[in-house]
Amino acid sequence: MTQHPYDALMAHQFETEALAQIAGRLGWDQETMMPSGAGAQRAEEVGVLEAVLHARRIDPRMGEWLSAINDADLTEVEAAQMRHIRRSYARTVKLPEKLVIAQAKLASRAHGIWAEARETDDVDFFLPVLEEVIELKREEAAALADGGDLYDALLEEYEPGTTGDQIGAMFDRMRDRLVPLREKIIGSNTYIAPLAGHFPEDGQMTLARYVADRFGYDFRHGRLDKSVHPFSSGSGTDVRITTRVDEADPQNCVYSTIHEVGHGCYEQQIDPEFGMTPLGGGVSMGVHESQSRIYENQIGRSRAFTRWLYTRMRDIFGHAGAADAENFYRAVNRVHSGFIRTEADEVHYNLHIMLRFDLERDLIRGALEVADLEEAWNSRFTADFGGQVDKPSNGVLQDVHWAAGLFGYFPTYALGNVYAGCLNKALRQAVPDLDLPLSRGMTEDATDWLRDNVQVHGGLYQPRDLIARACGFDPSEEPLLDYLETKFGDIYGL
Amino acid sequence: MTQHPYDALMAHQFETEALAQIAGRLGWDQETMMPSGAGAQRAEEVGVLEAVLHARRIDPRMGEWLSAINDADLTEVEAAQMRHIRRSYARTVKLPEKLVIAQAKLASRAHGIWAEARETDDVDFFLPVLEEVIELKREEAAALADGGDLYDALLEEYEPGTTGDQIGAMFDRMRDRLVPLREKIIGSNTYIAPLAGHFPEDGQMTLARYVADRFGYDFRHGRLDKSVHPFSSGSGTDVRITTRVDEADPQNCVYSTIHEVGHGCYEQQIDPEFGMTPLGGGVSMGVHESQSRIYENQIGRSRAFTRWLYTRMRDIFGHAGAADAENFYRAVNRVHSGFIRTEADEVHYNLHIMLRFDLERDLIRGALEVADLEEAWNSRFTADFGGQVDKPSNGVLQDVHWAAGLFGYFPTYALGNVYAGCLNKALRQAVPDLDLPLSRGMTEDATDWLRDNVQVHGGLYQPRDLIARACGFDPSEEPLLDYLETKFGDIYGL
Repeated sequence: MTQHPYDALMAHQFETEALAQIAGRLGWDQETMMPSGAGAQRAEEVGVLEAVLHARRIDPRMGEWLSAINDADLTEVEAAQMRHIRRSYARTVKLPEKLVIAQAKLASRAHGIWAEARETDDVDFFLPVLEEVIELKREEAAALADGGDLYDALLEEYEPGTTGDQIGAMFDRMRDRLVPLREKIIGSNTYIAPLAGHFPEDGQMTLARYVADRFGYDFRHGRLDKSVHPFSSGSGTDVRITTRVDEADPQNCVYSTIHEVGHGCYEQQIDPEFGMTPLGGGVSMGVHESQSRIYENQIGRSRAFTRWLYTRMRDIFGHAGAADAENFYRAVNRVHSGFIRTEADEVHYNLHIMLRFDLERDLIRGALEVADLEEAWNSRFTADFGGQVDKPSNGVLQDVHWAAGLFGYFPTYALGNVYAGCLNKALRQAVPDLDLPLSRGMTEDATDWLRDNVQVHGGLYQPRDLIARACGFDPSEEPLLDYLETKFGDIYGL
Repeated sequence: MTQHPYDALMAHQFETEALAQIAGRLGWDQETMMPSGAGAQRAEEVGVLEAVLHARRIDPRMGEWLSAINDADLTEVEAAQMRHIRRSYARTVKLPEKLVIAQAKLASRAHGIWAEARETDDVDFFLPVLEEVIELKREEAAALADGGDLYDALLEEYEPGTTGDQIGAMFDRMRDRLVPLREKIIGSNTYIAPLAGHFPEDGQMTLARYVADRFGYDFRHGRLDKSVHPFSSGSGTDVRITTRVDEADPQNCVYSTIHEVGHGCYEQQIDPEFGMTPLGGGVSMGVHESQSRIYENQIGRSRAFTRWLYTRMRDIFGHAGAADAENFYRAVNRVHSGFIRTEADEVHYNLHIMLRFDLERDLIRGALEVADLEEAWNSRFTADFGGQVDKPSNGVLQDVHWAAGLFGYFPTYALGNVYAGCLNKALRQAVPDLDLPLSRGMTEDATDWLRDNVQVHGGLYQPRDLIARACGFDPSEEPLLDYLETKFGDIYGL
């Protein structure tokens, strides 16, 4: 009996997903457990596994199966599987093997040069290799674009179905309200003190585990460790997250944890029927970030939840770094000008993204020369943030993304915030008295709603459609901006 | 330009080794880090990776390359590589795919049944599945044996170049001296108290790390964690070991650690030139065990080293569980009758192995029926150990090996002890004043000698030849028995 092409394709796909999960586990190991001297051997091991994966993804049988399948004969779920597989296969076979290998080699070299350039604040040391990265990235984009827009072709990898024009227009509208909001807050001369005091690591990790549990993170199917940069990794029944600890700043650990718990719960709560298939992971970077952000900000930094958190911190540390619950709430939401994206508050964060989006889009389209990049960064920073970049490591050299060739990735952070704003509006309509349980540290009303309306669907719907279905309205930036203006207007008495 | 067949084969082999290292890392993760609910998914992931590995190992090109290579044209190292590859390929292609799959499925089921049978002390619950395991194992042996002895064909997997007859004859000679030694010790009515007191886990792990470091274990290329059963895993620059902690019995943690450090140092100290090739791992189970045993027993349980260990334990715990260094030495070497192999002392350990070797050899050769196994175990136990087995979990159900199909594995434990005896004799001749540095916790004189004479060679020489080269004499059981009679004659005043 011959296997139906769809079944044959899905069996092949299952094995590919299994090997991809293994690759993910190795990545987790590298950042958390791997001995310091094992890096070179690990790179060789991973290189071999990636080659096995690549060979499976361009396997000529894939093309035969795809031609033999008539999507009209399929169920909704099967058709969604095919959408992912066709899209991914089409992109993969368009990329010349030579280019893929050249990019992998360059990424490793570029990372080393970037790290050294940032360390020594030497932009000129970085720019030549960035030039090379962009050249290959433009080649990649041209291969993918079929004559269309180069930047859109890259963005499609992270956020299927969204274009640079859509995002650019939305960012312009956001900027028109964010820059004035920022200026009003800074101009209000309201000083909010950050959390103060000493918070021992053991207590922070205890708190992190406790909070993760409260948000529904399932430790039977995950674990929480420390790493230099927090991340989440894996799908299905093995979804691991990390956090970091600064004993002078407990916010860092708590909110990094809640952020990664958002990512982790999304992966854990996808319909198990989709396990080890293309539908078994988060549907896009933007939607993924919407989950981490709504957990972290709209829920985790709400006045209600911070009231509970304040009490738990006093239990664990004997103090919570603030005089009372209200000052604690203000401290974890304080708006402060700063150079660094990853340290930005809710008001500044999207401004950091918009700056990067405009610059990287121009770089890819050839509208900005690498030689002019630092100047472009610094003047835009002054325009949006009102200060002068003091050194490249606080400016154009701060992020790893461009060295790693991740062009098109940055805007998904802001898109995640926008989606989180939409979901928060719908959630608050669906559960009007949400603050009551939140003030007791009970997040189920919120997380169950997100699970049932977003997370469980995995890759079943297109990203934007998924958010629209969940919210009952078309996604836009307005709910996020309304939320920010209301929340920070209140905190800063505007 | 066409690649030389040897180079093509080694390039293929490199990739296979890299994927095998990844499989090993997943095994480590499963025993140390994996979330409890991730087992089913992990089994699927590992199954796919094993299938990729198997396909590489029976790749038809392997046969073509092997035919095209004339070993006479090769260097000594290249010829040794070929010896390993030819042997492994010949065995792999002899096994029918159907049998391999049936064994993998059965192993998983048999493990579950064995665990439940041991838990409930129900031999009859286990025997039917053991019957199935043996049936498939005999099929495997027949496929491998080319008409030769079935048990030898299985033993060859773990200890190339050694036969059941050789081991059987050696074990008979050992038994003739071990049983009387055991009886004299028990008959001496000398009571030696075990270590007593409470030893907190933190202190034990601190001590374990300290001792591992003293034995030359390289934490830049390894790590030490806890697991239910201690093990070592990985080759080259990523060799991880585990230990376990019993707060009432610090011996368990310290000597499990030193044992695994022996395995780990062997892997870490193989010539880096052999990395990711068949020569880049320990050459056989017996030689591997010789390293763990000489580290653990001939060095770690020597009067000289325990003098230092006694002082370090007093530093860490405030006491060492014994009145003075001499009583500490006697306590960690106390001989006690017991049912369980893994808890046995140096005198009893090999008797446990001989019992298993005779029974499993008869099972494979069809000279013993599964129905008669428990009776055979119990009467042999009484003959060699002088007591009655009180329940199956203390007898025939205690070890996982047979459920897992590991027939031919047990004798390598005793062979390791024999090789350790030989190496210890040669080491003491080469470094006559070894006790002086050992009594200061300095093991370099011993471990450097083992590194240079055994470990660095990896798989370059045949197991028995390697030991003979290192020692300057043909390996035999005599040095081990001389050592045991002298050491325990002294401790027990025989």
